[in-house]
Amino acid sequence: MDFQIIVNTIWVLVTAKLVFFMNLGFAMVESGFARVKNTVNILSKNFIVFACASLGFLILGWGLMFGDGNGFVGLKGLFLLLGPDNSPATGEAYQGVYKAISWTSVPLWAKFFFQLVFCGTAATIVSGAVAERIKYLSFIIFSFLLSMFVYPVVGHWIWGGGWLQQKGMLDFAGSTVVHSVGGWAALAGILLLGPRFGKYTEDGKINVIPGHNLSLATLGAFVLWFGWFGFNPGSTMTADPKAISHIAVTTNTAAACAIISSTLTSWLILGKPDLGMTINGCLAGLVAITAPCAFVSVFDSIIIGFIAGVIVVFSVLIFDKLKIDDPVGALSVHLVNGIFGTLCVGIFAKDNVGNIPCGNGLIYGGGLKLFSVQLLGVVTVGIFVFIVSLIFWSIIKATVGLRVSLKEEIEGLDLGEHGNVAYPEFYIKKPSISTIKK
Amino acid sequence: MDFQIIVNTIWVLVTAKLVFFMNLGFAMVESGFARVKNTVNILSKNFIVFACASLGFLILGWGLMFGDGNGFVGLKGLFLLLGPDNSPATGEAYQGVYKAISWTSVPLWAKFFFQLVFCGTAATIVSGAVAERIKYLSFIIFSFLLSMFVYPVVGHWIWGGGWLQQKGMLDFAGSTVVHSVGGWAALAGILLLGPRFGKYTEDGKINVIPGHNLSLATLGAFVLWFGWFGFNPGSTMTADPKAISHIAVTTNTAAACAIISSTLTSWLILGKPDLGMTINGCLAGLVAITAPCAFVSVFDSIIIGFIAGVIVVFSVLIFDKLKIDDPVGALSVHLVNGIFGTLCVGIFAKDNVGNIPCGNGLIYGGGLKLFSVQLLGVVTVGIFVFIVSLIFWSIIKATVGLRVSLKEEIEGLDLGEHGNVAYPEFYIKKPSISTIKK
Amino acid sequence: MDFQIIVNTIWVLVTAKLVFFMNLGFAMVESGFARVKNTVNILSKNFIVFACASLGFLILGWGLMFGDGNGFVGLKGLFLLLGPDNSPATGEAYQGVYKAISWTSVPLWAKFFFQLVFCGTAATIVSGAVAERIKYLSFIIFSFLLSMFVYPVVGHWIWGGGWLQQKGMLDFAGSTVVHSVGGWAALAGILLLGPRFGKYTEDGKINVIPGHNLSLATLGAFVLWFGWFGFNPGSTMTADPKAISHIAVTTNTAAACAIISSTLTSWLILGKPDLGMTINGCLAGLVAITAPCAFVSVFDSIIIGFIAGVIVVFSVLIFDKLKIDDPVGALSVHLVNGIFGTLCVGIFAKDNVGNIPCGNGLIYGGGLKLFSVQLLGVVTVGIFVFIVSLIFWSIIKATVGLRVSLKEEIEGLDLGEHGNVAYPEFYIKKPSISTIKK
Repeated sequence: MDFQIIVNTIWVLVTAKLVFFMNLGFAMVESGFARVKNTVNILSKNFIVFACASLGFLILGWGLMFGDGNGFVGLKGLFLLLGPDNSPATGEAYQGVYKAISWTSVPLWAKFFFQLVFCGTAATIVSGAVAERIKYLSFIIFSFLLSMFVYPVVGHWIWGGGWLQQKGMLDFAGSTVVHSVGGWAALAGILLLGPRFGKYTEDGKINVIPGHNLSLATLGAFVLWFGWFGFNPGSTMTADPKAISHIAVTTNTAAACAIISSTLTSWLILGKPDLGMTINGCLAGLVAITAPCAFVSVFDSIIIGFIAGVIVVFSVLIFDKLKIDDPVGALSVHLVNGIFGTLCVGIFAKDNVGNIPCGNGLIYGGGLKLFSVQLLGVVTVGIFVFIVSLIFWSIIKATVGLRVSLKEEIEGLDLGEHGNVAYPEFYIKKPSISTIKK
Repeated sequence: MDFQIIVNTIWVLVTAKLVFFMNLGFAMVESGFARVKNTVNILSKNFIVFACASLGFLILGWGLMFGDGNGFVGLKGLFLLLGPDNSPATGEAYQGVYKAISWTSVPLWAKFFFQLVFCGTAATIVSGAVAERIKYLSFIIFSFLLSMFVYPVVGHWIWGGGWLQQKGMLDFAGSTVVHSVGGWAALAGILLLGPRFGKYTEDGKINVIPGHNLSLATLGAFVLWFGWFGFNPGSTMTADPKAISHIAVTTNTAAACAIISSTLTSWLILGKPDLGMTINGCLAGLVAITAPCAFVSVFDSIIIGFIAGVIVVFSVLIFDKLKIDDPVGALSVHLVNGIFGTLCVGIFAKDNVGNIPCGNGLIYGGGLKLFSVQLLGVVTVGIFVFIVSLIFWSIIKATVGLRVSLKEEIEGLDLGEHGNVAYPEFYIKKPSISTIKK
Repeated sequence: MDFQIIVNTIWVLVTAKLVFFMNLGFAMVESGFARVKNTVNILSKNFIVFACASLGFLILGWGLMFGDGNGFVGLKGLFLLLGPDNSPATGEAYQGVYKAISWTSVPLWAKFFFQLVFCGTAATIVSGAVAERIKYLSFIIFSFLLSMFVYPVVGHWIWGGGWLQQKGMLDFAGSTVVHSVGGWAALAGILLLGPRFGKYTEDGKINVIPGHNLSLATLGAFVLWFGWFGFNPGSTMTADPKAISHIAVTTNTAAACAIISSTLTSWLILGKPDLGMTINGCLAGLVAITAPCAFVSVFDSIIIGFIAGVIVVFSVLIFDKLKIDDPVGALSVHLVNGIFGTLCVGIFAKDNVGNIPCGNGLIYGGGLKLFSVQLLGVVTVGIFVFIVSLIFWSIIKATVGLRVSLKEEIEGLDLGEHGNVAYPEFYIKKPSISTIKK
């Protein structure tokens, strides 16, 4: 057997497993940043969401994303990967209906598993943003819809041979495809749900609602960082030594710099180095480097990471000013830095720096060519995902309803939705809500 | 050097590491499902059990399992892998006394490490079922006995060239060898130990004893799911791209479907979607797909997973009716679904669907041939493990004793066995025991 | 492309990721062993320390460690890996200024990433030892200094072609380079900081200050054990099947035996099997086998592990007698067993037993030759790191200060340094300080 197929498959599967493991990271960050009374609910959501994505993407999502079709959507081999396919054959030798992903020489199920864990990541991003007030069933339904329709369509545009890919948009590991998609879907949900009870008072105060367990949140952040070493280097889907080594280092460097800049920024702005900001800084750096990780130099990854860490702190404060209540900072991390990272490709790309051809961005003499297609992608994906998600959320609202009752919200979703509490033997205080600013 | 040996060794070691990591998963699921007062004890048991297995399997277990011998047990190269062996040579070129495992072209210590982590899994399954009342020392002794004698003998029958393997029994990654063996050993222990104080009252009530930390339990479940991507795809012990990709997807799909079906079943039966049932559903799906993962289609893995998730909910309720007190649901997950999964091979096997020849099961025209040998394996392994475990547990009971004093049980094993508490600075309630049914 | 480069790069990157993940292990062990009131601080330190190392080692550390230079330090290609380098070329074909690490055929960034995670480990060891009283900013500054100057210089001596390497010192995965370096730096910090308030009373009593969360500590220990399967087998930096299989088993066996011996020792000495001692026993066995893992037989790894587990228990008690206050036992684990493990090479080394030439140690007829160079390394590294660290800590003390105010220490560093608490909704007791001996 061709040894390239073997090593590529090992690489794709091992990195896919790391990306799968990010589900744990999200579950721990989100539950750690939420209150005790909603812990079981958040854990349940983060646990079942990957099951929903696994089924939804298997049944239809894969086909819409990678099936041969038009610029907008896949049309062949839609259901259960039943279309003809002679993977791991590539190039001229490939025969089948999933041509857009025939460039990587691994078996079909390896391709599926790798792409599935990315779809699952997009779906789980929504969870934290709508936390502490959404009905369990409504979240489950939306998770199916996102992984079966919304994510695959955008994925088709950018990774499935669709119109943005044809225009030359570059999103190496998914700052837009995964993170912004999750972010826009979350934003639509937040706007329909409204803020949590007590978050914004009538006299204009913004209350801080601290998370119940920063040990779990930190644990989750480490797991996510670890998983990102699958997310970014794995997106080569080929064991290309130069590329995967380069990407591992740009990824880590951006995270490190964003940790330092977000910590410093919160120290300067808020007076103390806030651990929540440090954690979200790390994730912001990782999201921002996701699109450009293969296309920028290690030196530029320092700059990208540093900026991402500053952005996330201000973004969290601005969303709060706008009364857009995002309990875990998911919008600031995934949406805002997803956009920033996608644009960074247009700015910092340097041809072949990571052993992968990409042309040059703005600062390396490429002009606005790459930047403008990146911007086009950001805008069109944003419009599409936001509107479709708004429609889906609205249909759910009109049928099963979106939000739990006020009584249930105050008592906690754990009791109302699950009849359970996370820590039954511990004495728990009423949540400490403190006012931060006028 | 032969490149196949290199990639096979990488694959075997990387997947073995993931299986090792399942020890963390078990520790967290089991301590999360137990009460605060027994947390240190459960953590200690789950930590030391892999040390016991590491020594026991090294000193004697490996030799009994893979040493050349008769149909019942290995007889050559028994101690410390000191027998002659020219691994990674295979087939005709192999010279040594561990012929049954000479089909995989990796060095001897890679074979040992991979098999060791499976032995350790079987041993750690027992821990949860006998939790909250067993003496620490007694559990340690049994862990040595299980990993030195019980597990290796059954392993020899099915994976070490023994009589069931010769009859054609198929247990790809160990629904029987690992999970049922752990389950039967646990059942014998439970029957000798009796239920926890307060679990079943004299007037016939069954009390629910909720776990103390569902965050930890969920964390553990994700770690186990992650580790299973080593457990099942790694069991090829060969970097066969088609097989390992196929197995990754059947494994994940069964888990996903079992999550959904167990959640729905508990929602319908118990009125709310219980997180404990969702978690055990996931594990049930994983156990059930363990034997057939390489032999069934992805579509059939949907069915297997869905059924497993339903089974586990009813099984938990039935064991409680029978007053068999299993604090974490280990019997329902590992024993019952281990049996179910092993039989699934006889039902759903489809020759070469996962790139590995296996013949056809019942629904693909294979008749009862495969099914009956699977059933034979289930029954004989059950009888053997249950009786031998009963003998071992009885000897321990007659010598060092099995169960802590009632006073110690009520105060918690952490103080009595370890002189320690898990969370000394937190205010802890008396455990809330509530009645569920007459 | 040369397939050896591909498999080596996969191996180096995958194991480096596991070593990275040890950051989570340290964070959980250290915060679990500390009090509630300092949890946010410890989590913050363990999170940001790897960011500091990532930057410090990138900017200067790598160059000092691996740049061509003299026996003491690297002098070429110092900054940002900007020196010429044609990796993955090796041997005669290599052209560049990082000759000392040109023996492994992987791209430059793979070498960097692997070496970086080791540097990060040394830095994070310090964190636990100075916990519960050091200023956050002071720790951050020291982390930069350690990863930019101290660690790279010692690394140059032993792994970068420096004088100890030329003399024949063997430290396969870093018992000295990583663990002792971290340990000596920590010891210097502890001596300048002094013990925590209330640890040693004026009438000579030693107070036990129990950790706040043994679930987290156990979780961390499992993660570290898991990560060590990257640390030791990865240090081949080459996918050599025999070597990596052998190392995986010596590593695991030493950990297992140390778990058993530390548990037994604490049972005999303290009356109960203390979970903290079991955990530190595991880590002690892993540290001790780190230098010799490739050079000793599996049988000898049993002996090394067993001794390490005994040493760590006595060491913890002795440091307390000496009033050297190390909240998590970092000195006993990393410094004492780092020294022990380094000397074990001189005692137990057996030429080629792990497929890597190393000569014979004391008990295999090698005489004192190897032992004495190991001892020389232990002593000179100790003197250098201790003195330089003392100077760095003193400069920090004289400028920004080392220790928080007594008021802040009593109230907890979480409030004082971060304005945050880890578990805001839980009712927390005053820490229970109990006296153990006169």
